[in-house]
Amino acid sequence: MDKVNLGSQIFVYPMPVAIIGVMVDEKPNFMTLAWLTRVNLDPPLIGVVINKTHHTARGIRQTRSFSVNFPGQELIEKTDFVGMASGKNIDKSALFDLFFGKTKSAPLIEQCPLCLECRLHGISEFPTNDLFVGEIVESYTEDRFLTDGKLDLAKMKPFLLTMPDNGYWSVGERVARAWEAGKALFNQKQ
Amino acid sequence: MDKVNLGSQIFVYPMPVAIIGVMVDEKPNFMTLAWLTRVNLDPPLIGVVINKTHHTARGIRQTRSFSVNFPGQELIEKTDFVGMASGKNIDKSALFDLFFGKTKSAPLIEQCPLCLECRLHGISEFPTNDLFVGEIVESYTEDRFLTDGKLDLAKMKPFLLTMPDNGYWSVGERVARAWEAGKALFNQKQ
Repeated sequence: MDKVNLGSQIFVYPMPVAIIGVMVDEKPNFMTLAWLTRVNLDPPLIGVVINKTHHTARGIRQTRSFSVNFPGQELIEKTDFVGMASGKNIDKSALFDLFFGKTKSAPLIEQCPLCLECRLHGISEFPTNDLFVGEIVESYTEDRFLTDGKLDLAKMKPFLLTMPDNGYWSVGERVARAWEAGKALFNQKQ
Repeated sequence: MDKVNLGSQIFVYPMPVAIIGVMVDEKPNFMTLAWLTRVNLDPPLIGVVINKTHHTARGIRQTRSFSVNFPGQELIEKTDFVGMASGKNIDKSALFDLFFGKTKSAPLIEQCPLCLECRLHGISEFPTNDLFVGEIVESYTEDRFLTDGKLDLAKMKPFLLTMPDNGYWSVGERVARAWEAGKALFNQKQ
């Protein structure tokens, strides 16, 4: 076995890129993050992980709502920018066209192919970061991102992040069908 | 605004695919999941979300350790299979070549380009799923997956999952540099 140790400061390969939208002191603010996952099936809960000191973390505690927006590749520059600039120092409120949904308080990004609107369900605290868990109350897309009524990744053109090499990556081809590719093996082992 | 509502049962687009390895009743078991994220920077914590009824959940509680293995595309069939077959009914222990690291109890998959070895840090419980948070104690790769000492996604060839259209997707090209692509905009807004 020729395994190489890479230590413990290692990341998920690759990570989906999202922009979190929230009102902070009544002003829309946005930050990029790639640490997120669904945490529960029913009710539909999603968790986003934010450094305790971030402006966004304060806004979620204030309004108890936030949005999770998945940008397309044409938004790479703006996405990278909102991940570098803190709302403490730089006003990011006019960077995107916004709309509001059921919560009335979570700013959603018009330009993103998929936007989830979330109501705060709870917070799991960790030493340097907090996991903000939101209940998804509604999600928004446009007809042009759908195929047979379902979101089509090839049309959404999202991008991925790798760390610590700090790369953004496109999504390639659809290579197999999930819950199908392993069926022959499943039948054989029954 | 021509937004279409997709409801609340919506997922992260796209999701990274991992295989969780754990000893259950002293036998290696594996399950596929795509609900995972780092939850803390320091110490390095990773969270994996598992349905409460799953065999793997029982094994993590027994051994307080687990592995997170990122498969390459040549493992799609086996990955899909371990996501369909429950260890309660089907013995999956001989499907991969295994090795053990520091914990001595978390089975790691030799064939995966990246394996994280985790010691259970805690469990955040949600209604239908539990978030198992592990401290990453070590990670393993091979020289052939590195470029300049860092993991190279193009060499790892991992794959992604989308739901509910149930697709597996390859990763495309490296399209930009993170913390760099937005720098001109950042300097302009300063």
